Amino acid sequence: MTPAPVFERLTVIGCGLIGSSVVRAARESGAVSHITVADANQTVLDRVTALGIADAALPDLAAAVSDADLVIFATPVLAMGEVMAAIAPHLKPGAVISDVGSVKGSVSEAMQTAAPAGVHIIPGHPIAGTEQSGPDAGFAELFQGRWTILTPLASRTDDAYAQAVAQLSRFWRALGAQVEQMDERHHDLVLAVTSHLPHLIAYNIVGTAADLEEVTQAEVMKYSAGGFRDFTRIAASDPTMWRDIFVANREAVLEILGRFTEDLQALSRAIRWGEADKLHELFTRTREIRRGVIALGQESAEPNFGRDRGKH
Amino acid sequence: MTPAPVFERLTVIGCGLIGSSVVRAARESGAVSHITVADANQTVLDRVTALGIADAALPDLAAAVSDADLVIFATPVLAMGEVMAAIAPHLKPGAVISDVGSVKGSVSEAMQTAAPAGVHIIPGHPIAGTEQSGPDAGFAELFQGRWTILTPLASRTDDAYAQAVAQLSRFWRALGAQVEQMDERHHDLVLAVTSHLPHLIAYNIVGTAADLEEVTQAEVMKYSAGGFRDFTRIAASDPTMWRDIFVANREAVLEILGRFTEDLQALSRAIRWGEADKLHELFTRTREIRRGVIALGQESAEPNFGRDRGKH
Repeated sequence: MTPAPVFERLTVIGCGLIGSSVVRAARESGAVSHITVADANQTVLDRVTALGIADAALPDLAAAVSDADLVIFATPVLAMGEVMAAIAPHLKPGAVISDVGSVKGSVSEAMQTAAPAGVHIIPGHPIAGTEQSGPDAGFAELFQGRWTILTPLASRTDDAYAQAVAQLSRFWRALGAQVEQMDERHHDLVLAVTSHLPHLIAYNIVGTAADLEEVTQAEVMKYSAGGFRDFTRIAASDPTMWRDIFVANREAVLEILGRFTEDLQALSRAIRWGEADKLHELFTRTREIRRGVIALGQESAEPNFGRDRGKH
Repeated sequence: MTPAPVFERLTVIGCGLIGSSVVRAARESGAVSHITVADANQTVLDRVTALGIADAALPDLAAAVSDADLVIFATPVLAMGEVMAAIAPHLKPGAVISDVGSVKGSVSEAMQTAAPAGVHIIPGHPIAGTEQSGPDAGFAELFQGRWTILTPLASRTDDAYAQAVAQLSRFWRALGAQVEQMDERHHDLVLAVTSHLPHLIAYNIVGTAADLEEVTQAEVMKYSAGGFRDFTRIAASDPTMWRDIFVANREAVLEILGRFTEDLQALSRAIRWGEADKLHELFTRTREIRRGVIALGQESAEPNFGRDRGKH
């Protein structure tokens, strides 16, 4: 028994890992009746057509959105204001406009600035992903058991908007996600901690290792099983997507990076002075957090990471 | 057809993740005829007996090593000098003494200081592991396709020693590892990059996240799928083992940490000034290194990480 669709027509703009996962999950769940993909890159459109995951794949944004009940932006975050400007004149009144970007404050502002009246902008962010990119990397199960955070506009207190938020929440739940609402500034700070700083650190450490004179790059790769390998996986994420995230969430990232650096200096000092007890105390404390992550189920089915292991 | 054993009697001192994996792999491969485990912790000995992975499990170091042809230290690195002092009077002449510690320079020195004449000290390090600890966490396949680095003593140029090194290399190959020889100082620098710094950074970031006032610990755990989760796994590694590593390899760790911090400051500056091209260039470069790791096969079968996913 298939439940009734949550939205009739969905248009996803940008069909990389996340976009194509939304498309696949929306189709498999029956959350929508019709799916259009729009992408500026003809190679991506050709892959979408070949994969047969959407009903239509178009290069023209105006044509792609004109009938859509739900439009989801899945482009790098700095492109979202421009995309909104391009589609604004063509949107259906009452359409719900959302996105999957990892930064919400600046993106929300850019979308609002360019939006027409009569649509419902509801910024969103599914906390899920792998280090892979492109339409072939997506899979329908990506959002299962993961959290999607919505950051509804504080300025919109009308009933129609509240209904649109409820409808978008049902959509994400149909895709397998758990849905939470959050203030956009708070979202950006939380994600700076749980995602942006970890990526920044991984990019940095892999870069440092590559530039050493005393240790060759071949050695670094050969002996990566000691821990470094996990960093290389994170640091293999899409460069354009991450460049945009750091620029768009600069303030929160620098704030958290400042704390991290302070702590690292203290840790460095403890090593220099051989303060074994201090080290042991920190290392014991961090273990507890791991237990918390496992207890909350955020270390669980993750098809792509699982698939990746042992295949290459 | 089982090949002839490489050593007759093996004694492993300390039976945690690595020690018990050596024991399991040595038995399954037929690399030795008889296995004794020694551990100061009676609970560990009881588990070893219950698991039936060794022929004998003893609390008494003297009794455990007196007949051994190969003795492998698998304790935290700072304990190794003391262990050597305790067993020195009881070692068989010609016995091969090795270890699995992640630091070689200071460990080698401590072992040599306490060693009797007539034995062959060959420090060693299998580059393999998981974040789990204890005798139940080990598995026979841990070393398959991984590298074991031996750092033979430069002072020993005699034939008997060279033969002992060749024999120990055969032992590790029988356990599935690839074997490489390296100068101990170079080993410590390479490992500072590929293992010690990644662990230090992971411990630090998880600690930073735990101490934030604006973001709760519950939020950090809940939204950890964005990248943070991988750091919590690394930061769940055994606290005593890692405390010892940072104290024992202080010099190389601080050297590499200095480079990392410099690079991080430059990256931080690029974010502050919105230097998008610089960010994109780094993020593209680090992706290449990931490809190298995959090409070298160091991202492959890793039973425990695989098993861990989706089970808790």
